[in-house]
Amino acid sequence: MPSLEFYRSEFVTYLDKQSNYGEPKRLYDPIVYILELPGKRLRPILTLMAADLFGGHHKDALNAAMAIEVFHNFSLVHDDIMDDAPLRRGQPTVHEKWDTNTGILSGDAMLIKAYQFLETYEGNILRELFKLFNDTALKVCEGQQYDIDFEIRNDVSIAEYLKMIEYKTAVLVATALKMGAIVSGAASDGQRLIYEFGRNLGIAFQLQDDYLDAFGDPEVFGKQVGGDIIENKKTFLYLKAVELATAEDSKTLLDLYSIQPNDAALKIETAKAIFKQSGAVDELDKEIKKYTDMAFEALDQVNGSAEIKKLLTLFGKDLMKRTN
Amino acid sequence: MPSLEFYRSEFVTYLDKQSNYGEPKRLYDPIVYILELPGKRLRPILTLMAADLFGGHHKDALNAAMAIEVFHNFSLVHDDIMDDAPLRRGQPTVHEKWDTNTGILSGDAMLIKAYQFLETYEGNILRELFKLFNDTALKVCEGQQYDIDFEIRNDVSIAEYLKMIEYKTAVLVATALKMGAIVSGAASDGQRLIYEFGRNLGIAFQLQDDYLDAFGDPEVFGKQVGGDIIENKKTFLYLKAVELATAEDSKTLLDLYSIQPNDAALKIETAKAIFKQSGAVDELDKEIKKYTDMAFEALDQVNGSAEIKKLLTLFGKDLMKRTN
Repeated sequence: MPSLEFYRSEFVTYLDKQSNYGEPKRLYDPIVYILELPGKRLRPILTLMAADLFGGHHKDALNAAMAIEVFHNFSLVHDDIMDDAPLRRGQPTVHEKWDTNTGILSGDAMLIKAYQFLETYEGNILRELFKLFNDTALKVCEGQQYDIDFEIRNDVSIAEYLKMIEYKTAVLVATALKMGAIVSGAASDGQRLIYEFGRNLGIAFQLQDDYLDAFGDPEVFGKQVGGDIIENKKTFLYLKAVELATAEDSKTLLDLYSIQPNDAALKIETAKAIFKQSGAVDELDKEIKKYTDMAFEALDQVNGSAEIKKLLTLFGKDLMKRTN
Repeated sequence: MPSLEFYRSEFVTYLDKQSNYGEPKRLYDPIVYILELPGKRLRPILTLMAADLFGGHHKDALNAAMAIEVFHNFSLVHDDIMDDAPLRRGQPTVHEKWDTNTGILSGDAMLIKAYQFLETYEGNILRELFKLFNDTALKVCEGQQYDIDFEIRNDVSIAEYLKMIEYKTAVLVATALKMGAIVSGAASDGQRLIYEFGRNLGIAFQLQDDYLDAFGDPEVFGKQVGGDIIENKKTFLYLKAVELATAEDSKTLLDLYSIQPNDAALKIETAKAIFKQSGAVDELDKEIKKYTDMAFEALDQVNGSAEIKKLLTLFGKDLMKRTN
């Protein structure tokens, strides 16, 4: 049975071969730089697995996987500018290492490069990949915009929050899988189910990220624990706690989320306590379980290679067991 | 015989119908804003004319024309951020009216939207449009990067300068035409010739822009006359003058282009005098004529509608007679 490591290695070998982008160097060096930062390559290996799942060959999906990975990294480069983030995967972000204009322009070139990887496909497969990719790429922008909008809005609903993380994170995971299915000529039912697997898993993953941001082990969680609380991010935990907490706790939370104290330790502890007492953490657990279950139910219904289904189940379980 | 005004009106009517981009408003409002600023719509009407030129129907090329116009405006939004430009077509730029992050993200969405307009095409036509569009979009980014690189380089050659304006400006004009040809199923010879018409006309146009920037009538030239000199831009005039001028004049020019005096009037007058005396202006005239001639020779060889060829000749002559 092929392993996740096998698919990752297949992808990374192919990625490394694509690193000669030519001139001008100042446009292409940042692209090579960001693509070569050690990443988990979760999305592109999903594309490869989905191709094998539906009886195609994962090698035929390598360019679709590249499109996904290059697009994902494009979105990181531009998001890091917007968030003024100094680090990405422990290394300086592109706009820090070079400058903002370089980040903008190299990012643009990455978005175009992502499309260019689809050129190898033809006929209906090209057209289906193209339409899906356009739709998803726009949703990712919309998700990012909603995320920005929510910072200054005080009336964000949980439904809106879920739509935001769906657009910003989950649709690209879903699309990574569906593109593998399209390349291997899967029927529309299979395409739909594997998309649903990815979409629900992506939402569950992001909700879990919200949990880990507050309650993760600082030793293993990659980012600063409590970062969302420090930045007054209206995550599921916050929105649910405001809804469920006592009037007093709810007011405390609202007050806490209108300040940015130098020493955030007390703010973080207070917020976390209210998240727990209010029942918001329990509700989040339920929500994560709900989306995880929906993901595996969709996968279960897929008519495809039993081996790859097992591997995708393993992938999903690993992802949802993660502590970092 | 159809007129340029006819094609412009066809395009603008179609553009106006596409202005409902939905939510989130903060992502899409800037797109509508920049697309609705009064522009000449030179590129998209070339797409429509090229479709009719090769026996197709311009209405079938409306989405290709939209892709070109939306891409062009995307590049303006991001370039204006990079250049820190306050005004575009006499109105506030997107990043001035909103902010830089909005300019980045709405620009990204525009680039994706541009691709999305190609979704209506199928089969080989889609694939040809897609490959051409990818290639051109990357070249536009490369041209912008070369333009930025040249600011800090002192060894720019005329050949490099010509390549930069070809990538930054001319290939999109050429592609606008070739996309119309592809949509109407033109043979490869016709596609090549109409591309060459656009490419050479685009280079001639940009060279003329360099001339007008220094010697245009301030009353009719849209931008600040002498702007390139103030900003020490290494245009054809500057590069040629450094090459042809006396050692003394050449040194004066190099010195002038290393300073940015508060009162630029003397700097502008001195530079213009050297441009003339050195023979650089005469050389520029020759170069403009050379590219204009090459453009019309290519058009002449096109096997297509005589009416539309006449109209494209008129278009080219108007463009090269312009004073603004």
